[in-house]
Amino acid sequence: MVSRSTVVVEREKMRTVIIILSGGMDSATLLAKMRHEGNAVRTLTFDYGSKHNKVEIEYAKKLAHYYQVPNQIIELPFINELFKSDFLKSGGEIPEGHYTDENQRSTVVPFRNGIMLSIAVGYAESIGFETVAIGNHANDFSVYPDCRPTFIRWMSQAAVQGTYAGISIYSPFLHITKSHIVKIGDRLGVLYEKTYSCYKGEEVHCGSCSTCVER
Amino acid sequence: MVSRSTVVVEREKMRTVIIILSGGMDSATLLAKMRHEGNAVRTLTFDYGSKHNKVEIEYAKKLAHYYQVPNQIIELPFINELFKSDFLKSGGEIPEGHYTDENQRSTVVPFRNGIMLSIAVGYAESIGFETVAIGNHANDFSVYPDCRPTFIRWMSQAAVQGTYAGISIYSPFLHITKSHIVKIGDRLGVLYEKTYSCYKGEEVHCGSCSTCVER
Repeated sequence: MVSRSTVVVEREKMRTVIIILSGGMDSATLLAKMRHEGNAVRTLTFDYGSKHNKVEIEYAKKLAHYYQVPNQIIELPFINELFKSDFLKSGGEIPEGHYTDENQRSTVVPFRNGIMLSIAVGYAESIGFETVAIGNHANDFSVYPDCRPTFIRWMSQAAVQGTYAGISIYSPFLHITKSHIVKIGDRLGVLYEKTYSCYKGEEVHCGSCSTCVER
Repeated sequence: MVSRSTVVVEREKMRTVIIILSGGMDSATLLAKMRHEGNAVRTLTFDYGSKHNKVEIEYAKKLAHYYQVPNQIIELPFINELFKSDFLKSGGEIPEGHYTDENQRSTVVPFRNGIMLSIAVGYAESIGFETVAIGNHANDFSVYPDCRPTFIRWMSQAAVQGTYAGISIYSPFLHITKSHIVKIGDRLGVLYEKTYSCYKGEEVHCGSCSTCVER
């Protein structure tokens, strides 16, 4: 029998979480996990002018709809206009090869996670949410400096110190690999055909860019 | 006589700096200081829908022109649309009183410095600049959590860790008061009549909002 006090404790465990939702496999798994754990979830999707933004954002919207959570799209056109990355429409060709290869450096959008996390933290403080969650993982940080555990640690401290509510950053896949994430997702019934990753932005995954190879 | 090696050393000391320039007294003094020290400077001004954005941004442009440095304006309309603050056009009345009063909390734009610094860090990495400078000071952090020394420290670590170049954040007024900043500015010949602070956004300073009282 569940006592009244137990119910209250369970409710107190529920978190209010803003998830950064790209439409890819990692953030889809994060969304499934946070919903499975019974949290109150909202999702933020950023349109910063990547080559695959149109297709990817449609996948993010459908994922949010499937999990019955609100989705807010935030446009950051200045990134495509001012930043340097082959990941952007304004950049060069996407290099082929493995996701962790040195040549993938040209696909890094400088400090993208810092920017997305900061905006999500400000939004969380504005709407009274406690936590911002992001789906970066252990395969990311060989190439992407703003996926490093040290980056996440300091950014999280900055969020706690820089807000009245002490907003926290939650990165549950920080030390696990993509294949581990997929195992978690399979257990949670994530429909990976409802996710999108290809850097080239075609309707069908190209199969040769680094994220398709990884996928 | 200045030897050739001395000249080289002097040149090596020169930093490439992006200054967050609002058009107010603090960032104007920061700009004067960084130029006086012989750094290569660019300025970023953010338009996030504050009540005084139109007037303030004109002052920022004129300051950049006066100090002969490039100025880039970045629009962040989602802040006015989604964030909660009386500082914004979408917010309530600006409260009167002293800048450090408890009632000034309603003028905080959540994590604004985190957002501006993150964008400036990504831009710096994109254009090959080393440092991002911000003019927050010791009177700010009684009300604004994202001006606290601990926030600046962790955010700075996050920038170093989250970029290839190890971009640094420079906050030279962090532990000094506004009156001290004005003394520095006076020595550097800052023309404070070329700056703007009023939270209400009228052409002439209102004289009663907290930043006018402080000014």
